[in-house]
Amino acid sequence: MTGTEVLSGIIRDRNSPWLSEQLADLGIELAHVVTCGDRPADLRAALDFLQGEGVDLVVTSGGLGPTADDLTAEVVSEFAGRPLVLDEALEHRIAEIIARFARRWRLDPEALRAANRKQAMVPSGAIALAPVGTAPGLVVPASGVVVVVLPGPPRELQESWAQAIRTKPFAEAIAGRTEYRRRMLRLFGIPESEIAETLRAAEREVSLSGLEITTCLRRGEIEVSIRYEPEREERAEALVDLIAQRHESALFSRDGTTIDEQVAELLRGRRVAIGESCTGGLLAARLTDRPGSSDYFVGGVVAYSDAAKVELLGVPAELIERHGAVSEEVAEALADGAMSRLETDVGVGLTGIAGPGGGTESKPVGLVCFCVKSAFGEDVASQIRSLELPGSRADVRDRATTVTFHLLRLLLTEHAPRRVVSDAR
Amino acid sequence: MTGTEVLSGIIRDRNSPWLSEQLADLGIELAHVVTCGDRPADLRAALDFLQGEGVDLVVTSGGLGPTADDLTAEVVSEFAGRPLVLDEALEHRIAEIIARFARRWRLDPEALRAANRKQAMVPSGAIALAPVGTAPGLVVPASGVVVVVLPGPPRELQESWAQAIRTKPFAEAIAGRTEYRRRMLRLFGIPESEIAETLRAAEREVSLSGLEITTCLRRGEIEVSIRYEPEREERAEALVDLIAQRHESALFSRDGTTIDEQVAELLRGRRVAIGESCTGGLLAARLTDRPGSSDYFVGGVVAYSDAAKVELLGVPAELIERHGAVSEEVAEALADGAMSRLETDVGVGLTGIAGPGGGTESKPVGLVCFCVKSAFGEDVASQIRSLELPGSRADVRDRATTVTFHLLRLLLTEHAPRRVVSDAR
Repeated sequence: MTGTEVLSGIIRDRNSPWLSEQLADLGIELAHVVTCGDRPADLRAALDFLQGEGVDLVVTSGGLGPTADDLTAEVVSEFAGRPLVLDEALEHRIAEIIARFARRWRLDPEALRAANRKQAMVPSGAIALAPVGTAPGLVVPASGVVVVVLPGPPRELQESWAQAIRTKPFAEAIAGRTEYRRRMLRLFGIPESEIAETLRAAEREVSLSGLEITTCLRRGEIEVSIRYEPEREERAEALVDLIAQRHESALFSRDGTTIDEQVAELLRGRRVAIGESCTGGLLAARLTDRPGSSDYFVGGVVAYSDAAKVELLGVPAELIERHGAVSEEVAEALADGAMSRLETDVGVGLTGIAGPGGGTESKPVGLVCFCVKSAFGEDVASQIRSLELPGSRADVRDRATTVTFHLLRLLLTEHAPRRVVSDAR
Repeated sequence: MTGTEVLSGIIRDRNSPWLSEQLADLGIELAHVVTCGDRPADLRAALDFLQGEGVDLVVTSGGLGPTADDLTAEVVSEFAGRPLVLDEALEHRIAEIIARFARRWRLDPEALRAANRKQAMVPSGAIALAPVGTAPGLVVPASGVVVVVLPGPPRELQESWAQAIRTKPFAEAIAGRTEYRRRMLRLFGIPESEIAETLRAAEREVSLSGLEITTCLRRGEIEVSIRYEPEREERAEALVDLIAQRHESALFSRDGTTIDEQVAELLRGRRVAIGESCTGGLLAARLTDRPGSSDYFVGGVVAYSDAAKVELLGVPAELIERHGAVSEEVAEALADGAMSRLETDVGVGLTGIAGPGGGTESKPVGLVCFCVKSAFGEDVASQIRSLELPGSRADVRDRATTVTFHLLRLLLTEHAPRRVVSDAR
């Protein structure tokens, strides 16, 4: 991947993780990810290094834009020994795209066309993919390696990739690869060292040879990825069973589903409303992240000040006075208020101290009080917790949403009465 | 940086961007970022490649944990020809940290200690940094290059880095570097190709030689970074002036400040409340991202359903009926409702269609209606807009928050009466 802006930390690379997953799905083993600046020599050095490492496929992203610092096509053409030639059909196609674009932004189409003509230059014998934005991706066969050149904007990269994998040079480059399978487990509520201990026990009891296991802490959860060739299926299963046996209550996903997917499924046919304070909207944002969430998410209040708690959710001012804004009592009142104001059967209340300021001896930074509630008429269930979450302001805010999702899972798994809905689904 | 979990796309690499910024601040030119898997041979290949490229400094992150796939210290010790030896003082120190940790999680300290003993193994002659988590960072002199080995968790990495740069081998490795300066400009509301056109004009009018310019689209804004040696200061200034002259209304930051910083500054001494729909909490989350935001952010409503708009913010049901939930009228009613319910002098209303479903011919996916309002008694000002934002659901949600911040900037710059506050600040 190229781009001084990536290297210098100005933008975050969203493409590498996406491409990594795509490669894994195709059973292609990823050997290296190299980020380099926009200087031609840096990109060339990276290509030479990867060729020397004997890889079959190199995927580049970025450096195809209209500005002078976008040089990927030129460098790859030299690397492959395939001079750039103007592809006139492509030039015509880009001109049409640009004309539409110019009308939208009310720009001079001629000036734009000049800025974009270089995007119609294609290494001879290479395949130009259909442009998604204005920059066409390329599939460029070189000595012992095929270079797939993709535009940097994620949507353009993803659509170009879908085209690239259907080309003949791509198919030839990845022929004869080993097919891998992958199991992904997710756990919550234990430290990573306990998994390390379990893996050492597994090494003794079931052997791990032939399994590539990686563990990783993410957003307060532990992910265990097990990658293996098909003939190791049984051994992988034995490991999964051992982990399930030793960490029954922590293991919430044996099939790779995320807590967000599980909670979305559990909320189907129900109605949820929330009142959140220290997460400042992140909990609502996470609950509405998925398309279709309006089926169950009715609304929320970001009750940042005491006034918002009282005015918007009817939390009694004297309750705040008596127990403090950060208390289990106020968390429950926030949940109750959200449920009653918006007439839902699931409610969440959350209040805490995200920091860095505002902590006291008895209520330190990181303290968060949670209440999740489910009600059907007289039948009410709830989970109420206070936790001290570690890390920075951003960590505390993010971690609190993860904890809430796990409390919702616990609540809705145990308290699962559903509305009788008239439409069959 | 190491870690199959980074390579395989399971976790996003947050450390590279941070380290890149730190290196830039120290005037160290970053040549390559290499991500490799947890296999020792891959890390070794990367170290050999970088040594071959003639770099003075290699920084690794990750691979210092307690699990068996954490092998960085071992590989670096072999690379540097410095065998691992047990550092007893360090072992003692880690044991103390682990004991605290074990009490917190209620774990068997002995089992934990065994899992972590390998973290006290240090390459002979290398400097072990004080452990931040349980894994100590290392500064390891090797042939022609110094390797700084940092733990993967961002907080541990950042604190270890602060220690590493004060060590003697580090100072020696970076001696004699060129000092660079950097200017960062930010623009909003024009396409990247217009900046490309301006840079071509600048090349003719003021010459760009000696300036390293990168442009980058991020969250709907264009960032222009200009990096140069001190003697090019005048030329850099001339370029900044030319960009300011050609893009006066789009250029909102000449000093690198972000729109978030500017809006936080403009909101000082004021009180803001919001009613947001399609952003689902992201706008409130962005407004409360910064410490101290509770000084001006009073509260918000995530008015996802019509019921929430009516019940929590008093939007008249017949207004929704007449104009539709996505309309400028409803956006204004959301702002008015938030302001009056929470008694603030600044209000925001936002309603739109994030997609992928829910679009119609007249109101397509991506349409978002905005209202920002400022009031002091009879003196009221507002900005109302409807925009069609491109991209995916996540793009539309994120972009809508950026647009809102720019509308707030516009409003609060032009309509700046402030409450008379009794405390001097």
